[in-house]
Amino acid sequence: MNDKRLWEPLELIRTRRSTRRFAKRPVEEEKLAAVLEAGRSAPSGGNNQSTHFLVIRSRKVLDELAELAQAAFAAMEETPGMYSSLRSSVRRSKAGGYVFHYNAPVLIVTANRRDHSNNIADCACALENMMLAANGLDLGSCWINQLKWLNEEPSILALLRKHGLQEDERVYGALALGYADTPDGLPPRTPLPRTGNPVSFIDD
Amino acid sequence: MNDKRLWEPLELIRTRRSTRRFAKRPVEEEKLAAVLEAGRSAPSGGNNQSTHFLVIRSRKVLDELAELAQAAFAAMEETPGMYSSLRSSVRRSKAGGYVFHYNAPVLIVTANRRDHSNNIADCACALENMMLAANGLDLGSCWINQLKWLNEEPSILALLRKHGLQEDERVYGALALGYADTPDGLPPRTPLPRTGNPVSFIDD
Repeated sequence: MNDKRLWEPLELIRTRRSTRRFAKRPVEEEKLAAVLEAGRSAPSGGNNQSTHFLVIRSRKVLDELAELAQAAFAAMEETPGMYSSLRSSVRRSKAGGYVFHYNAPVLIVTANRRDHSNNIADCACALENMMLAANGLDLGSCWINQLKWLNEEPSILALLRKHGLQEDERVYGALALGYADTPDGLPPRTPLPRTGNPVSFIDD
Repeated sequence: MNDKRLWEPLELIRTRRSTRRFAKRPVEEEKLAAVLEAGRSAPSGGNNQSTHFLVIRSRKVLDELAELAQAAFAAMEETPGMYSSLRSSVRRSKAGGYVFHYNAPVLIVTANRRDHSNNIADCACALENMMLAANGLDLGSCWINQLKWLNEEPSILALLRKHGLQEDERVYGALALGYADTPDGLPPRTPLPRTGNPVSFIDD
């Protein structure tokens, strides 16, 4: 076995961590293009290739999105079985000053056709590829779910449609992307422990 | 920019292709462990870490799964709006001799809690990581959706529960894994064209 080949892809994958504090420094066009190529290279159900990448760098649109999301979450009520991350968005929106995209310089929204049965999985593969490419390029990134939770919210649909979202498309995830606001400018990379994600072997 | 770092992760990602013909050669334990570590290293919603990996190498269980899936698909009727890949499974099952997992030596089933709202996306990220790790290790792999489509089928639930699937878990994807049955033993790696997966830029 070629140890180098064993080590490198695993290292890229193991050291991917979420970045939630971003520097204002913009992402170079070349790096952004590589991240997008990684996303576009993801597999898709039936090779459907219907993931649509909305790359938002406009401060105005990012601010509008944050305000609309905060208003939508603030209008929700917490329910007993509510997903904990969604509950946190609701609470923080009611408190005010909530910016779901961490003010990253780039937000890549992944949309897909509402009637494509593999839409969530296809977007997830594209997002995972982009997070790995970002890590390999010394960029920080973080999976963003808020626009998926709000993917039928009329105000957000209207804004995104003004900027290219198609009528039959909905958002199934997003990626905050940029340089990490850390002393060395690098994203965190020490792998978090995996105490869950169990494995069962079924052998003869 | 460090061109080597730009190139390598992208190359790993761009050259990942589906393998649908597998050699009988077993997968080394060390390589299988690396693929599983890649899967377990995937991010999860709220760091939930509730993806459960069922690693099936038992020929008996693989054969049973193929038979149960064929029987379930054969009992379905094609409908006008049916997802094309599902339609193909139904047709091929009615014709007989349908083996959804391509007789790969390993089938890694990814399950998650039915009530975890990020279950599909979490399993998809784990599957994408495993496909990339497989590519880096000269292994072939293919995303398998059939057990997700049949994830409420009583006969399949009963079989998987006998082998570790928990009551509150359902299958959201799977991976066929093994050496490719190609002249050089390597998986196909020439990137397929991406004519879809459009990108929209939203700048100031």
